[in-house]
Amino acid sequence: MEIERKFLIKYLPDNLEKYACIAIEQAYLSTDPVVRVRKSNDNYTLTYKSKGFLSREEYNMPLTKDSYYHLREKADGNIISKKRYLIPYDSNLTIELDLFLEPFETLMLAEVEFDSEEQAKAFIPPDWFEKDVTFSKEYHNSYLSSKIFNV
Amino acid sequence: MEIERKFLIKYLPDNLEKYACIAIEQAYLSTDPVVRVRKSNDNYTLTYKSKGFLSREEYNMPLTKDSYYHLREKADGNIISKKRYLIPYDSNLTIELDLFLEPFETLMLAEVEFDSEEQAKAFIPPDWFEKDVTFSKEYHNSYLSSKIFNV
Repeated sequence: MEIERKFLIKYLPDNLEKYACIAIEQAYLSTDPVVRVRKSNDNYTLTYKSKGFLSREEYNMPLTKDSYYHLREKADGNIISKKRYLIPYDSNLTIELDLFLEPFETLMLAEVEFDSEEQAKAFIPPDWFEKDVTFSKEYHNSYLSSKIFNV
Repeated sequence: MEIERKFLIKYLPDNLEKYACIAIEQAYLSTDPVVRVRKSNDNYTLTYKSKGFLSREEYNMPLTKDSYYHLREKADGNIISKKRYLIPYDSNLTIELDLFLEPFETLMLAEVEFDSEEQAKAFIPPDWFEKDVTFSKEYHNSYLSSKIFNV
């Protein structure tokens, strides 16, 4: 089970370059349920996510590089590319800050994953977070894959 | 983890019609690892299987009817159709007897799933089983999906 909240960003945090950064590319074969392939640096994964917002059933399964590119050919709509910064927060949390590349280069989203729904609801966001978009389907990456996003 | 052995069949067991029977259709989006969609009567599933013979990592995830047919369009090679009979055996085992339909209509395979590799190795097959093909990749359904099978 994946429990996470998602936010728009007011401004970038200081010293972004000091955090770990992953180059992510992902593509969708299905959006309901989500069946997604992802390249994360040199790791290749098939992901399944059930429908939902705050909590979703999620499975991550390894792919070879060849099977990734084979399945990527079968994807629908936009391939999503982004730089993900991993920012430690509040002793035991990690903010995943996604800076999207074309065709969504104006979009920035922060996600935080939690151990429980209680912890998710109690979360106090930092100053640089803006609107909570956890329950907005238009900020699901699967939705972006099927639409051009105009900010 | 799925632990199973697979056999060719010498002859059909008596009174086959008294056992539960499922109509299965399956199609492959990747064969290494296996990424498969399956319709089993009116249930739709996405399956991931790691490489292997006797033991394989396996995940089964629900699909909607729509997502099944959407993903089925992306499949490579042959769609596999078969009638699967579920035959109780030896107090706690079930033999899955697969009678394939076109283009593999001469093929019959029996599979037995076990709780442990020890139990798998200790299994004594019934008279109507023939050759053990557990370690033959040509009897993997994923292999059949990519080849025309000539008996």
